[in-house]
Amino acid sequence: MNKKAVVLLSGGVDSTTTLAIAQSQGYEVWAMSFRYGQRHALELDRARDIAASMKAKKHIIVDIDLRAFGGSALTDEIDVPKDRFEDEIGDGIPITYVPGRNTIFLSFAMAWAETLEIDTIFIGVNALDYSGYPDCRPEFIEAYQRMANMATKAGVEGKTELKILTPLISMTKAEIIQKGSELGVDYGLTLSCYDPDDFGRACGLCDSCFLRKKGFAEAGVIDGITYLS
Amino acid sequence: MNKKAVVLLSGGVDSTTTLAIAQSQGYEVWAMSFRYGQRHALELDRARDIAASMKAKKHIIVDIDLRAFGGSALTDEIDVPKDRFEDEIGDGIPITYVPGRNTIFLSFAMAWAETLEIDTIFIGVNALDYSGYPDCRPEFIEAYQRMANMATKAGVEGKTELKILTPLISMTKAEIIQKGSELGVDYGLTLSCYDPDDFGRACGLCDSCFLRKKGFAEAGVIDGITYLS
Repeated sequence: MNKKAVVLLSGGVDSTTTLAIAQSQGYEVWAMSFRYGQRHALELDRARDIAASMKAKKHIIVDIDLRAFGGSALTDEIDVPKDRFEDEIGDGIPITYVPGRNTIFLSFAMAWAETLEIDTIFIGVNALDYSGYPDCRPEFIEAYQRMANMATKAGVEGKTELKILTPLISMTKAEIIQKGSELGVDYGLTLSCYDPDDFGRACGLCDSCFLRKKGFAEAGVIDGITYLS
Repeated sequence: MNKKAVVLLSGGVDSTTTLAIAQSQGYEVWAMSFRYGQRHALELDRARDIAASMKAKKHIIVDIDLRAFGGSALTDEIDVPKDRFEDEIGDGIPITYVPGRNTIFLSFAMAWAETLEIDTIFIGVNALDYSGYPDCRPEFIEAYQRMANMATKAGVEGKTELKILTPLISMTKAEIIQKGSELGVDYGLTLSCYDPDDFGRACGLCDSCFLRKKGFAEAGVIDGITYLS
C-alpha cells in the first residue's frame, strides 16, 4: 500500500518543494490550497498548475474568508513594503503576517486528512527564513501536532497518530532551491511575489522577491521567472 | 476598561448560555458564527437574532466550506439518526460528528481575537453531554490553548496569554438550562434540532432534540419551542 499525505500547497517555492520532497519519500499527495481573500488570486492558478504537472492525486481549493476580520497587508488594503534593506526583513513580525493563518490552514488539512483516513500532513514552514511569523516555528508545529492528536477520532481511539512533517524547517532558501532542483521541480511555475502585476510578473522589490532572488543566487540555480525590477 | 471576549455562537442552547455566562462575568462579547455547509441555514438566523437580542458588541458569520471534503451527516446527504434509545446516544462517535469542526472554529476565533487584541475566547463545549465528540474534551481544549499561545504574535512576544474558557465543560444539560434561565436567556430563540422543518420547527426525534427535551424536563424549565413529534 502506498503512503498517503495531505500537502499544503500555496504555489510558492517552499510548498512546491515540500510537495516534491513528499513524493520523493514515496507519498501519494492530496494537495490543498486556500482562497482566503488574497489580494491576488494568481497564486491559486499556479497551485493548480503545479498540482497537475506534479501529478498530485487530488487538489482542492478551500474557500475561507480571512478578510472578514482583516489585520494583514496580504488581505487588507495596506501597502506591501518594498525595497527594504536585508536587515529590515525579519526584524520583528512584519505587517504581511496574517493572524492565525497556518493554524487555520493546518486545521483544514487535519479535517481533510481525518476524512480521507490519512495520517500525514506536510507543510513547508521554515524557521530560518520565516520572516518573524510565530506560526512557522518548530515549537508551534509540535504543539499543533499534540493538539491534533486530541482532536481526532483516530487519536481518541488510539488507532493512529497524526504526523505533521516540515522537511524545510531548518533549511535556508538556497538549500530549499537546491533540493527542489535535484528533484526536478519547475520553479518557473511558482509565484513568490506579494505584489505581482496582472500577468503574474513579480515586482522584484518586496521582501518575498528579495529572499527569492537571494536564494536562487546562493543556490547557483537560474530563476525562470520574470521580474519587473 | 471592560473585559472583552470572542464567543463562538451556533444558535443552540449551549453556545447561547455560554454567551450569557460571559456577559454575567463582565465581558463585552464579540460573537462569531460559521456558515459551513450546514444542511439547514436556520441556525445562522437564530444566531443573528440571539446576538442582537443579547446585545453582543459585534456578530460576524464566517464562510467556510466543510462540504469540500465531506465526512459527516451534518454536512453530507446522510440521514440523521432518529428516535434512538438513550443508551444508543453517546455510544462511540456518532455520524453527526464533523471532523475537525471545533479545531477549525477555534482557529478562526483565535485569529479574530488576535486581530481585535482580545485575549479570551468562550466556547460552549461540554464533556458530559458531548455525545462522543473528541474535540469536546478538556484535554483537547488544554492542548488547543497551549498551541494557540505558540501561534500568535502576542504569545511570542510574551505580551498576553490567550485563554479558552469553557464554562459548561462539566455541567449536565439540565444544569446548563437552569443556569441560563437564571441569567434570563430566552431559549425560545435557540435551535437544537439536527433536522428541523422549513419553519424551524424541531423534529423532536433526533439525538439533539432528545437531549434537549430531557434537559428541560430535568431542569424543570418550560421549553418555549415547538416540536413536530
